[in-house]
Amino acid sequence: MTFDSLSTDQITTIFEEQTAAYRTLQNAGLALDLTRGKPSAEQLDLSNELLTLPGAGEFRDAAGVDTRNYGGLNGLRELREIFGKIMQVPADQVIAGENASLAMMHDTLVHALLHGMPDSPRPWGKEETVKFICPVPGYDRHFALCQQFGIEMIPVELHQDGPDMEEVRALVTDPQVKGIWIVPTYANPSGAIVNEAIAAELAAMDTAAPDFRIMWDNAYAVHHLTDEQTKTADILGLAIASGHPNRPLLFASTSKVTFAGSGVCFMGGSTENIEWYLRHLAKRTIGPDKINQLRHSLFLIDVDGVHALMDKHRAILAPKFKIVTSTLKSRLGPYGVGSWTDPKGGYFVSLNVPDGTADRVVRLAGEVGIAMTPAGASYPYGDDPNDRNIRIAPTFPSPADLAVAIDGLATCVLLAAAEQALAN
Amino acid sequence: MTFDSLSTDQITTIFEEQTAAYRTLQNAGLALDLTRGKPSAEQLDLSNELLTLPGAGEFRDAAGVDTRNYGGLNGLRELREIFGKIMQVPADQVIAGENASLAMMHDTLVHALLHGMPDSPRPWGKEETVKFICPVPGYDRHFALCQQFGIEMIPVELHQDGPDMEEVRALVTDPQVKGIWIVPTYANPSGAIVNEAIAAELAAMDTAAPDFRIMWDNAYAVHHLTDEQTKTADILGLAIASGHPNRPLLFASTSKVTFAGSGVCFMGGSTENIEWYLRHLAKRTIGPDKINQLRHSLFLIDVDGVHALMDKHRAILAPKFKIVTSTLKSRLGPYGVGSWTDPKGGYFVSLNVPDGTADRVVRLAGEVGIAMTPAGASYPYGDDPNDRNIRIAPTFPSPADLAVAIDGLATCVLLAAAEQALAN
Repeated sequence: MTFDSLSTDQITTIFEEQTAAYRTLQNAGLALDLTRGKPSAEQLDLSNELLTLPGAGEFRDAAGVDTRNYGGLNGLRELREIFGKIMQVPADQVIAGENASLAMMHDTLVHALLHGMPDSPRPWGKEETVKFICPVPGYDRHFALCQQFGIEMIPVELHQDGPDMEEVRALVTDPQVKGIWIVPTYANPSGAIVNEAIAAELAAMDTAAPDFRIMWDNAYAVHHLTDEQTKTADILGLAIASGHPNRPLLFASTSKVTFAGSGVCFMGGSTENIEWYLRHLAKRTIGPDKINQLRHSLFLIDVDGVHALMDKHRAILAPKFKIVTSTLKSRLGPYGVGSWTDPKGGYFVSLNVPDGTADRVVRLAGEVGIAMTPAGASYPYGDDPNDRNIRIAPTFPSPADLAVAIDGLATCVLLAAAEQALAN
Repeated sequence: MTFDSLSTDQITTIFEEQTAAYRTLQNAGLALDLTRGKPSAEQLDLSNELLTLPGAGEFRDAAGVDTRNYGGLNGLRELREIFGKIMQVPADQVIAGENASLAMMHDTLVHALLHGMPDSPRPWGKEETVKFICPVPGYDRHFALCQQFGIEMIPVELHQDGPDMEEVRALVTDPQVKGIWIVPTYANPSGAIVNEAIAAELAAMDTAAPDFRIMWDNAYAVHHLTDEQTKTADILGLAIASGHPNRPLLFASTSKVTFAGSGVCFMGGSTENIEWYLRHLAKRTIGPDKINQLRHSLFLIDVDGVHALMDKHRAILAPKFKIVTSTLKSRLGPYGVGSWTDPKGGYFVSLNVPDGTADRVVRLAGEVGIAMTPAGASYPYGDDPNDRNIRIAPTFPSPADLAVAIDGLATCVLLAAAEQALAN
């Protein structure tokens, strides 16, 4: 049974049922927030050991350097070793920074605009137009960076195995197209995983711009939700093999591993790219917070330590994702309304509602105290051309609150769908 | 007795004596570093309590917010209260950031170049030329920022009470002159203190640029070396009083209060300036490391806590500065060679040697293992037109090493002076 095959009377019945359900929500006085991919307090508790680390008298790194003082621009060696392995980049080509990989992406664009990349004919700011390919749905903060810097965004469809390569291939013949955003593993919000073949083509394809960059934001590299622990494609190795070592810039962080606000971020790439970044970084700071890096190194110990911690996150998160998908299935499934992802990792469920109703659904939800990310947020300029996509962030609320919120959201989806069907 | 009044024979005698002393230095195998204003390990030890803070189970700020999570773009309220008082800026107009105020200055210039200040006719990057007034001698990292961004630097003389206002007054009639660097208290390297009258004139003077900025880097606000605890002029209050609230941007940090590499930095200014900065900062990060800010708040407690800690720094530092000035006096004084500051605070002694010999002195010292900041570093483009100024950073070495280093430096000064006198 789908909405399409129903009579007006049947749809009217649904409309009345959902209107009644919505009235109940209006009286419930909810205050639930599904807007951002924030870890819950229970997840943060997993890293509480950090609150007393590095510990009394502990301030020397493995090389014996006093981490309390200035210096060490590229960050603590032993922490770069751990995340270099996760990123598949030699530790010498990894920078450990402050608490936000977004800041490294921001500054990469700033340096490119004001100075140019190592292989740029001129600073990007001196180009008439700079364009970026933006697989959609995608991460709103990537798009906000482009908008901040006047970089024109070109959406391409993101399939479950990566961006639509036919579209990408056509776009990179334009020398003004200087880059592409990629969240290779468990993309925000669709959970898409860029497969090896597509990664290889991204690394190897001819681009008209000599300084084309893949902004490889591996924010969810180790954030599995199933036993199938997806291994991210080795983009730097692929790029070197195809003669484009400077093409990928890799980003990662512990924001959703340890403390969201007090983690460590990482950037990796070719020696030339890393030297370029450090040369500009040296004007901005004398070095990162090495004590926080030491704290993380003592807490995580090694790659196995990271995976062990992520297993504990998974134990908290997998049931929450299950609540989302099973609630959507039981509430929307019978009507054949909407479709949603069942991701193998990451922080989001991507929900597609009937075209033209996403904005209405989010407003309906907001009015009964269920805060959702604005419809369209996963698209450049906030513009979802189909008004279809809603990003659900299930991590922060308690399971009980989450169940109430998704049930309420489903009511809003059905109500908006019925409204639309009756209006047509 | 001065060098000028000596006969060639007498100078030859000095040359031979100092050459012999220099040979002794050559054989001593020294490895001493007076280059950077780094705190010593003994100073860092004063803040070792931070190594176990905030403490088990401690992660809520005064308002009850979980500091482990994302958010709080402008930083922890209670820490902004403390440093707002020190900066003489309301806490609401203070941002607490990461570990480096240099980064805030860097990003201020980046935002100005790419977007313009709140009162800019256009982004600074769209101006034909942007110029900054640079009081000299000054801080090399300020000058490096200007150079990085193609901002033309115009040196003006820094007197012991502030920049030469006759020069400044003439320069600000040029609309391309968009700013001035000021270290108001215990300037790097001269120890100069901008007095109230000069601060008032800087705040009140007519400038051709509507978006003229005073980059008020109060790095040594509480870094006293004597009982005379200089109070910095209230530049924001003065600027508001004269109708230019947006003119000053104030910077400070705990880099030389707690841990040099793991402190907290601060920026203050008018509401319009702070909103402008936060609007751009929001694209770069979701928030600062609030746990490190909580750690600092718990450790410092209040303004009195800051002053009590600085008293302990002073007990370590004042004797080191005494070693520098007394060694220079005993070694150079008898010859009337050179002049140097005896600062009431801050991190440096500024030494002027006979014109044309600073570079030679620094090279002579380097060759015997006494590393000095390159001559000219305190001038834009590294160019000291008189080749006269040498910056001495006495804080990092032990007293014993410092005494050896300054004695060796004095030998180099006398040797270079004698060489020059004989060559003329």
